[in-house]
Amino acid sequence: MGDPSSAPLLVRALRGEPVERTPVWFMRQAGRSLPEYRELRQSGSLLELCRQPELAAEVTLQPVRRHGVDAAILFSDIVTPLDAIDFGVEIKPGIGPVVAQPVRDKADLARLRDFDPDVDMPALRATIEAIVAELGPQGIPLIGFAGAPFTLASYLVEGGPSKQQSLTKAMMLADPALFDALLRRLSAIAVASLRTQVDAGAQVVQVFDSWIGTLSRSQYERFVLPVMQDLFTELAELGVPRTIFGVGTGHLLDLLAQTGADCVGIDWRIDLRDARKLVPDGKALQGNLDPAVMLAPREVIEAEVLRVLAEAPDRGYVFNLGHGVLPETPPEVPGEIVRLVREHSATTTLA
Amino acid sequence: MGDPSSAPLLVRALRGEPVERTPVWFMRQAGRSLPEYRELRQSGSLLELCRQPELAAEVTLQPVRRHGVDAAILFSDIVTPLDAIDFGVEIKPGIGPVVAQPVRDKADLARLRDFDPDVDMPALRATIEAIVAELGPQGIPLIGFAGAPFTLASYLVEGGPSKQQSLTKAMMLADPALFDALLRRLSAIAVASLRTQVDAGAQVVQVFDSWIGTLSRSQYERFVLPVMQDLFTELAELGVPRTIFGVGTGHLLDLLAQTGADCVGIDWRIDLRDARKLVPDGKALQGNLDPAVMLAPREVIEAEVLRVLAEAPDRGYVFNLGHGVLPETPPEVPGEIVRLVREHSATTTLA
Repeated sequence: MGDPSSAPLLVRALRGEPVERTPVWFMRQAGRSLPEYRELRQSGSLLELCRQPELAAEVTLQPVRRHGVDAAILFSDIVTPLDAIDFGVEIKPGIGPVVAQPVRDKADLARLRDFDPDVDMPALRATIEAIVAELGPQGIPLIGFAGAPFTLASYLVEGGPSKQQSLTKAMMLADPALFDALLRRLSAIAVASLRTQVDAGAQVVQVFDSWIGTLSRSQYERFVLPVMQDLFTELAELGVPRTIFGVGTGHLLDLLAQTGADCVGIDWRIDLRDARKLVPDGKALQGNLDPAVMLAPREVIEAEVLRVLAEAPDRGYVFNLGHGVLPETPPEVPGEIVRLVREHSATTTLA
Repeated sequence: MGDPSSAPLLVRALRGEPVERTPVWFMRQAGRSLPEYRELRQSGSLLELCRQPELAAEVTLQPVRRHGVDAAILFSDIVTPLDAIDFGVEIKPGIGPVVAQPVRDKADLARLRDFDPDVDMPALRATIEAIVAELGPQGIPLIGFAGAPFTLASYLVEGGPSKQQSLTKAMMLADPALFDALLRRLSAIAVASLRTQVDAGAQVVQVFDSWIGTLSRSQYERFVLPVMQDLFTELAELGVPRTIFGVGTGHLLDLLAQTGADCVGIDWRIDLRDARKLVPDGKALQGNLDPAVMLAPREVIEAEVLRVLAEAPDRGYVFNLGHGVLPETPPEVPGEIVRLVREHSATTTLA
């Protein structure tokens, strides 16, 4: 890692260095879209799986073996740290994370105690070490994973998934000090988790702020951006590239860049050329193939992959979806896209 | 109506005429947020209520009486015409519209037969006539209501509400001809419904394309815009102002303006000044108060209402929310906002 040229392709692309071809991985590349995952999962909850290092490592590695992607991403869920500190959260099939006692006032904050991964969730370090032991010799990096404060707060305040995050926004507007304290506790949890992940061998980190696109620019600037700037300042000490991602963020992209992240994830709604105008050149972009394209016929997939590559910047770009792989995705499709990206981006870069 | 100056305030604002103050109404102003609605509703489904003209008219009128808004909007659901042609749809409490047999191939299109409101849903005309009989003498217009083809198609293809509309997009990408035929059948249903509504006395129409923001610009341009342009051309014959509305459409606003609509509804994500740059001056804007603001303390509500008014264009603007009134909204809040808009927009206009 000391010599930049020896760093993995993904890391070099995220740093904005010239690369021999475009790196490619997929959000939710592990999990329900893979038959080998469904076979292995069978019984037991997702949170139980994340507590078993061998299983969690195996699930993380499955898409690397099957698809030939340029990175693994820790198989986990953004609520695992909340589970680890016994906050009382479960992931209900077909629904998502559900919180037994939602956060409604200051007293509830006390239940969000400090998170010490090596004490509260020893499986985290063990899982990452197991993954890195297998991936390291292949030169494939592992991406560490954490939920961003706003998106986690939305589950905690609403009590579960929500279309409009209205209770979360109501708290934000009615009691900005309480909301800020909530976000800062969740930020500390994310930092603690990512510090352990990098210490154990993760070479990139990605912060998932999936539902942040529900906020207006002024709401984001006032209530979330300061917390995110502090979060990314703390993450800078880890010395690895840091990506921020959310869906429906076309109206927020310049503000997401102001968090200090090295890379901004783009969903499928706006194209990469428009995104490039909003995110300063020094920062990488990642995305933006529509996950629904993976359900389409081959010729549509190829045309869409080529379109994304044509619109991508020459440097500082990582091929990915605009959101996670859909469960109904045919398992051979991601690998076909990897091959398309490899073939066509090598040509593009030489041109 | 022949003399422009005698037209209702809402109609004049939608035409871009100078007005004495900003008109105000709220999407979902009728319904679950009102105790008088919950009392009246009690038993029976929403679709059953829509089949009873006296009840549907009463529910439509409740917010006019309580809040003093400048318009009524037909209390209905975008799927009522599908129910009327016996397509097999029901509205499940807490879930939304659910379709028994989703549309998956060409054979399913045959089940989407022509909609003749006076035969298939006689309650539609009767409801509107009852509303207009009460509102007409007060000079308050009724807004007619229809679902847009894409949003309706998403329920039909997915079988119910969906976060990502992935099956809908997969059909769109895999079989554009089938998807186009589906949208055009749904467009014909919307036109038939709105023609009857205007014929019965509605003075404005609004087309709800709530989930259209899930599409990228290129997807919208290629697969949806041509259908919408034909739809709005047909609606032009009705001779009333036509509004198009969707959420999360900041990346599509200029394309929504190209539908031919007279007014573009804006959610809360982008501010009205940015929206004004994307929607040509000849077209009105409507929105964009965040519905979650209605759950906030009075001083926050007042500050947000004043911010929206300050950012609104001088002409061609209708105050509204960025999406529907949330069910948990305190019932006195919409009326307070109406008073704030009346007081402050009169001042603004004179300045």
